[in-house]
Amino acid sequence: MKQFWSESIRDLAPYVPGEQSNAANLVKLNTNENPYPPSPAVIEAMQRATDADLRLYPDPDSLELKRAIAEFHDIPLEWIFVGNSSDEVLAHAFLGLLKHPLPILAPDITYSFYPVYCALYGIERVAVPVDEQLRVRITDYQRPNGGIVLANPNAPTGIALSLDEIRALLSANTESVVLIDEAYVDFGAESALSLVGEFPNLLVVQTLSKSRSLAGLRVGFAIGQPSLIAALECVKGCFNSYPVDRLGNIGGAAAMRDREYFENTCARIVASREWLRERLVELGFEVLPSQTNFLFARHPAHAGAALHQALRARNILVRHFAKPRIDAFLRVTIGTDAQCQILVDALKEILG
Amino acid sequence: MKQFWSESIRDLAPYVPGEQSNAANLVKLNTNENPYPPSPAVIEAMQRATDADLRLYPDPDSLELKRAIAEFHDIPLEWIFVGNSSDEVLAHAFLGLLKHPLPILAPDITYSFYPVYCALYGIERVAVPVDEQLRVRITDYQRPNGGIVLANPNAPTGIALSLDEIRALLSANTESVVLIDEAYVDFGAESALSLVGEFPNLLVVQTLSKSRSLAGLRVGFAIGQPSLIAALECVKGCFNSYPVDRLGNIGGAAAMRDREYFENTCARIVASREWLRERLVELGFEVLPSQTNFLFARHPAHAGAALHQALRARNILVRHFAKPRIDAFLRVTIGTDAQCQILVDALKEILG
Repeated sequence: MKQFWSESIRDLAPYVPGEQSNAANLVKLNTNENPYPPSPAVIEAMQRATDADLRLYPDPDSLELKRAIAEFHDIPLEWIFVGNSSDEVLAHAFLGLLKHPLPILAPDITYSFYPVYCALYGIERVAVPVDEQLRVRITDYQRPNGGIVLANPNAPTGIALSLDEIRALLSANTESVVLIDEAYVDFGAESALSLVGEFPNLLVVQTLSKSRSLAGLRVGFAIGQPSLIAALECVKGCFNSYPVDRLGNIGGAAAMRDREYFENTCARIVASREWLRERLVELGFEVLPSQTNFLFARHPAHAGAALHQALRARNILVRHFAKPRIDAFLRVTIGTDAQCQILVDALKEILG
Repeated sequence: MKQFWSESIRDLAPYVPGEQSNAANLVKLNTNENPYPPSPAVIEAMQRATDADLRLYPDPDSLELKRAIAEFHDIPLEWIFVGNSSDEVLAHAFLGLLKHPLPILAPDITYSFYPVYCALYGIERVAVPVDEQLRVRITDYQRPNGGIVLANPNAPTGIALSLDEIRALLSANTESVVLIDEAYVDFGAESALSLVGEFPNLLVVQTLSKSRSLAGLRVGFAIGQPSLIAALECVKGCFNSYPVDRLGNIGGAAAMRDREYFENTCARIVASREWLRERLVELGFEVLPSQTNFLFARHPAHAGAALHQALRARNILVRHFAKPRIDAFLRVTIGTDAQCQILVDALKEILG
């Protein structure tokens, strides 16, 4: 079967994304999608751009999209790299900035794509255990390394580090890249963007998939000083000259420019999250403190896998990771208030 | 500047795409885009799909798009891999199928992204010289190798190998992958797709950028037996779970399904190509026999760089490669008949 495969890929185990289903009546709370549609300005701009010009290549530099990101974050254009989703941006960062003689450091419990990138590119990695409460302790990262990768807030725990902690980490680690993956930062955590000017080794990665309701469009970006951005541009230019298509450039820019819609939908999700959190606690769950659009929770009397299955049988999809330390937990994406209510009702039934 | 860069990317030289310009009044014949818009069915399907569902991830397996490709080519679904442009598909193929102890073989004059992929992934490459007429001689490829990569028709020459030649190559080379890059095949060459069932080491790569007028959407695909496709899926799954966005899946499928529009626009381009070819010959150009949507031509009395500049000054963009063996040539994309006429008039003026 693998006769013609390159030796280097024979033992790779790809990342497994959450189930994507088109089934009707499904309450889909398993892949951290936003329950609200993208901004009407996004839909309008994209529909207008769906025209004869699709015959032409997109702008390989995604200048309009970068301008919108620069304006939103009030940073220079030269600090921005964009890609076909933050997963692609992360992949380029691993290859271009994190492949060194020393191993990278990342938590044992975190986004499970990181070890996959390491295997793909032959990067050594030390899995640094999170503490008993599944929290990242930044003092554990003070040792020689080829780079440090932290999701903040972390996934799937939802727990955020403070800006002071990130600053302390950066102050103690100046010789290698610190990559902060802020996929979920807009739901209540503090971004490290304000530290980019100060630390030339800091790369912040964000995505439009979650807080901008655009998982279907595949747009992500990184922000760092020009030397780091140049490394990403170098890898991109050796891989695919036009990673972001015409509609990604246009829709992404429109999303970054509708600040009011973005802030409103994020606030609604945060409110729903706190409501759902209280209900889960009432039902006996232990719920980790989340600054994301999901909750990570376990029940003292019910196994995670069993709850996952029982919900599945009621057409409710949540995510369960059959992994050491976290297999008692469920990761529940915050849906609309109606969806959250359906989940609570189903759990009441299941728990009896 | 490169303090934090991985050692492996420090000496990389990215691929340089043709100039993308938004200037009005520009006759853009430099990046082999299709002069005709995508099928109206594509625009309609994409506009309909630009809706609230953009909040959801795309189908990571791109099943609808694969179905449309399978139907068009009358092949099994399991033979198809899709990606965010054929450049991405090629990148995955280089990493997953062409990285072996022996060097790969590719023509010295061909798509200049191939050497870039080799450098990116540490793949050794032997540049096999094309002959005096810039033709690929398949007998030159009968030596031990880690893979063979041929663009057919070749770029930037436009010259095609026959199906018999490809078959002979495959019959003589059964131990490594033969990748046939058919980006331009729909403008008159014979596809190697009919050989996939016979040769488990054949991978054919195609794109929707040229003959389907969708350079702006970024959709490409590979066709091969399941073992080769599994290698590409493995690399993709370690890189980005959802490379093709919702609109790429839907627009791509609609493009594959409108066979009549596709055949009509290809036929128009072929007719324009032959008309332009005759005019260029009348003007004294040597024009290589093209089976693509571009012509590769040189003038005995005028340097390629000078002609390129003189056309640029008249707002006509063509492509010139400042490279050994081909720097006398211009690569001219076939535009609309009106654009071809403007080019001919300008050349008449320049040549005096």
